[in-house]
Amino acid sequence: MARGRRPGTSSSREDIAGAARTQFAELGYDRTTIRGVAAAAGVDPALVMHFYGSKQRLFIETMQLPFDAPALADELAAGDRATVGRRVIEYLLAAWEQPHTRALFVGRARASASEPEAAKLLRDQITRELIGPLARSIGADRPELRAALVSTQLIGWVFARWILEVEALRPLDVEQAARVLGPALQRYLVEPLD
Amino acid sequence: MARGRRPGTSSSREDIAGAARTQFAELGYDRTTIRGVAAAAGVDPALVMHFYGSKQRLFIETMQLPFDAPALADELAAGDRATVGRRVIEYLLAAWEQPHTRALFVGRARASASEPEAAKLLRDQITRELIGPLARSIGADRPELRAALVSTQLIGWVFARWILEVEALRPLDVEQAARVLGPALQRYLVEPLD
Repeated sequence: MARGRRPGTSSSREDIAGAARTQFAELGYDRTTIRGVAAAAGVDPALVMHFYGSKQRLFIETMQLPFDAPALADELAAGDRATVGRRVIEYLLAAWEQPHTRALFVGRARASASEPEAAKLLRDQITRELIGPLARSIGADRPELRAALVSTQLIGWVFARWILEVEALRPLDVEQAARVLGPALQRYLVEPLD
Repeated sequence: MARGRRPGTSSSREDIAGAARTQFAELGYDRTTIRGVAAAAGVDPALVMHFYGSKQRLFIETMQLPFDAPALADELAAGDRATVGRRVIEYLLAAWEQPHTRALFVGRARASASEPEAAKLLRDQITRELIGPLARSIGADRPELRAALVSTQLIGWVFARWILEVEALRPLDVEQAARVLGPALQRYLVEPLD
């Protein structure tokens, strides 16, 4: 090993996870391979299999969000109810500016489009991970529906901005994008839906 | 041929197109193969290649929307400006209830997630096909940005409702979903964005 590490150290596990996240985000699920991830991480494919067992497990285990979602949901729910939509979208837009965090969201969306198991994972995450707990935390009626509606706008933004790379969305910085998207999230989270 | 057709008739071309739309929508781009489409259409793979030349051309040529987009944009733009967002989303939600039309939108979204050429196509279509002309037709300021914002919500709905199949969105019929999504579209199309 060029960097003098023994195979199978936790550092090579992290290298594999990092390479997996990048490849899932850039190539999508089907075009990401154990072999390609191993090559990018500078390890033998057998080591990837040793740690993760399959591409599906590799995906599921490396694409977890890096934040404590329940605590974050409480934090975003605290404060003025009239601006909760704006707080949520500002937090997420800033997170998506970080290449590492963005890769997780983009990778999940890309994989969901072709791999049913990834779609199931994302579907569950929508309800459980951040927006579901947030909708319950602010005491909204119909929290499941509200979380799902928020998710439509979030997924659509990630898809159009970071997968399609729609030109007109590029110039918006975090604050401008939050100003534009905030009212839809505010409505889905708090305001009467009918 | 079981149905007594000569190979290469326009009817087998339509069978191929129908099979391609279904498979792109259900399997995504990478898992759709010339061989699989040919089998579903009951023709030889060589005939698919004869008509389309490559999987990429097969995708591009069979995934065109079945409506006259400029005429539809004018039709949706005519009438009360205060309800244009509602008219757009009602039209599209009703279209997505039709399996054939839905397959086109779902297939485009799925393919865009893995195939850069499909993402480029969808990106261009967003600006040119329906929502861009509509934004210009109602005389909105910043029509490109508005069309892109509308598209984030539309893509996100298609993705969450028809690819992830989020449970909480299922019970909404066209009218209920239009009532819920209409205000966001109305804002993106017409109202001040800052």
